Amino acid sequence: MTDVHMAHGTTGTIDTATTEQAVDLAGALRAVRDNNPLVQCLTNIVVANFTANVLLSAGASPAMVDNSHEAADFAAIAGGVLINTGTPYPETAKAMLLAAESAATHHNPWVLDPVAAGLPWRTDVARNALAAGDPAIIRGNASEIIALAGSSSGGRGTDSTDPVTAALATAKQLARTYHCAVAISGPVDHITDGERVLTVSNGHEWMTRVTGVGCSLGALMAAFAAVVPNPVDAATAATALLCVAADHAAAESRAPGSFATALVDQLYLVSPEQLAAEADVRALAA
Amino acid sequence: MTDVHMAHGTTGTIDTATTEQAVDLAGALRAVRDNNPLVQCLTNIVVANFTANVLLSAGASPAMVDNSHEAADFAAIAGGVLINTGTPYPETAKAMLLAAESAATHHNPWVLDPVAAGLPWRTDVARNALAAGDPAIIRGNASEIIALAGSSSGGRGTDSTDPVTAALATAKQLARTYHCAVAISGPVDHITDGERVLTVSNGHEWMTRVTGVGCSLGALMAAFAAVVPNPVDAATAATALLCVAADHAAAESRAPGSFATALVDQLYLVSPEQLAAEADVRALAA
Amino acid sequence: MTDVHMAHGTTGTIDTATTEQAVDLAGALRAVRDNNPLVQCLTNIVVANFTANVLLSAGASPAMVDNSHEAADFAAIAGGVLINTGTPYPETAKAMLLAAESAATHHNPWVLDPVAAGLPWRTDVARNALAAGDPAIIRGNASEIIALAGSSSGGRGTDSTDPVTAALATAKQLARTYHCAVAISGPVDHITDGERVLTVSNGHEWMTRVTGVGCSLGALMAAFAAVVPNPVDAATAATALLCVAADHAAAESRAPGSFATALVDQLYLVSPEQLAAEADVRALAA
Repeated sequence: MTDVHMAHGTTGTIDTATTEQAVDLAGALRAVRDNNPLVQCLTNIVVANFTANVLLSAGASPAMVDNSHEAADFAAIAGGVLINTGTPYPETAKAMLLAAESAATHHNPWVLDPVAAGLPWRTDVARNALAAGDPAIIRGNASEIIALAGSSSGGRGTDSTDPVTAALATAKQLARTYHCAVAISGPVDHITDGERVLTVSNGHEWMTRVTGVGCSLGALMAAFAAVVPNPVDAATAATALLCVAADHAAAESRAPGSFATALVDQLYLVSPEQLAAEADVRALAA
Repeated sequence: MTDVHMAHGTTGTIDTATTEQAVDLAGALRAVRDNNPLVQCLTNIVVANFTANVLLSAGASPAMVDNSHEAADFAAIAGGVLINTGTPYPETAKAMLLAAESAATHHNPWVLDPVAAGLPWRTDVARNALAAGDPAIIRGNASEIIALAGSSSGGRGTDSTDPVTAALATAKQLARTYHCAVAISGPVDHITDGERVLTVSNGHEWMTRVTGVGCSLGALMAAFAAVVPNPVDAATAATALLCVAADHAAAESRAPGSFATALVDQLYLVSPEQLAAEADVRALAA
Repeated sequence: MTDVHMAHGTTGTIDTATTEQAVDLAGALRAVRDNNPLVQCLTNIVVANFTANVLLSAGASPAMVDNSHEAADFAAIAGGVLINTGTPYPETAKAMLLAAESAATHHNPWVLDPVAAGLPWRTDVARNALAAGDPAIIRGNASEIIALAGSSSGGRGTDSTDPVTAALATAKQLARTYHCAVAISGPVDHITDGERVLTVSNGHEWMTRVTGVGCSLGALMAAFAAVVPNPVDAATAATALLCVAADHAAAESRAPGSFATALVDQLYLVSPEQLAAEADVRALAA
């Protein structure tokens, strides 16, 4: 496969590069900050706090409404909905299904983050949500995407045991089946709608040393999907924001603890112009 | 309404101002730190960690006993109890009702924080708790206070869509009905027992950019109520402590991530004397 | 009781001291970082995030699989399992029992952290887990160890109301009954297998001012037990790592908020050599 660099270059042709940029990253970030989208998160007990802070710093408004009595009604009014299977329980799994159905019915974009798919029960939870209505975006690591699609070797919790490229064909198929974007997280993130494939090459390995960074990316995708019509564009802009913020945060941190704090700061500090200038977003040739 | 400045002024009459201070803030903070009150929190999965750290830094001792088997017994021995409806589930909602009943029976002060009241199911949870026994303090933003009282426009999750002043009459009525203090959080916090109204004008807008700051205020109120007999005094001292600590934290931070860490530090570092000198607490004329 | 200093001294006989060191701390930490053990945590909503970050910084891989549908299957493949009774609910209590049974059946080491034992319901949860299969390690403060063994005065949540030494005889008895190591946390930590007793004297009082430090120690013990065969050695090495990291963190912090961040950093930064050189581990004479 040949990479075609459609984003910024380092050769000084910034105007041209901006013109050719695959996604309007600056415009997407401005849309989040101007519209402060309400993002309903049905997520896990490990990352709920970090996820809410990531959304607040980026400019969105989190609401963790994840009980079965209220999930559907809230999904009808939320700007975007995240369903994350990190620590599902019978009660919250029921709420996830209801939220997915309601979001789909009300044409509100929802994001599926099938954390640790491959474990049988939660894989069913994730698939039942998919069956309830097409999501805007599915996000996971390579193992999770493969497991969700039914071709899994199991994985080990949230760690991917498969390389990103191994999951790309599966991701394209998933995207076509559910008419959505599928994002595979890894050293280089890949986002596809089944046809085109965009990559984001920013980021730092400490993103895997802080719990909830991947999960908060799913939440950011829901925030961007609330204000950016095309799901691939929304998923790509969310990924670029998190990874560019991580580049900044890593440069001023010494270890994962201080990195986590700096990452939340940088999600607030990175400007739309910085995002557009620094994001390494490319389109893969078909 | 005319403000009557009963706290410190900036005009040099500090001795007089201190004498007239509406609430003995320094004494209240000393009482928390000397007595290390045990605060039972039935709160939400998003803010449980931050809330516990806020209580520990301020000098209290948190205990998140929120299951239905133990909630009542623990409320009988806790110094103060917080009931926060941020992420209620059938099991924890049951525990909340039992804790409220037990706290009331044993004359232990309890605080209701009706997060996102307006959503029908949790509004019932909050009202059932109120029906079980008078709380010492009800705390919320303007929309939550209005929704709890039954005159709501709904709100959007934890964000208030109503100004503080619009909720003041409702807050006074609630306070009279339940014989408690009602605190409305906002740019200027208002605390009332149905007759007098105190305001706290310290704080920083980043308090709305970190999840759990409002929720941790409810927990601090339970800590102060455990050692300060008058609920208005307790709620005002808790509010003043959090807002003065936020003033310090904002001055040394650059964005919400570092602000959150600095806020927890400052809750430990602010002295009773600093609190009394820097808090901008005033009594509104009747 | 007479202390026999078997670890490093301050008298310059470092080679001798190293030779005599009671536990190979450097080797244990290297084993964690080289093998990246998968640690299943069934823990509480307050500390799940901090616990995961502690494990990630130390070099382990957390997986919070705590529902009753998946807990047993995951315990069969995890390197180590933590069962922590901080905020048990009917669903997670059921999962805890299943995980303990499965871990024991598959000879995977599991750690019991009976948080706030003394409250009747969770004490039953902890005892039922013990009855399901011998753990590798039991960890608690003095009050929790005494309460678990049935001789409790109750305690007050997570605060110990008993001194460490008062629990030592009880700890030895528990260790013999369940063929495991028992670790009592306090200003000086004590670890026993019923015969020998090791102490760790590092650490800082701010460890009690940040929620989840004790709980994360239980998780670290599960990580070390996954790669260190002797449970006393594993528990001692985990304690030494956390306490040496806390020494470093306290030296560069000003209050509990910044201390918590620095602690996570230091768990990543402390080298095996530093750990061996700085840990104050001693063997008590029998």
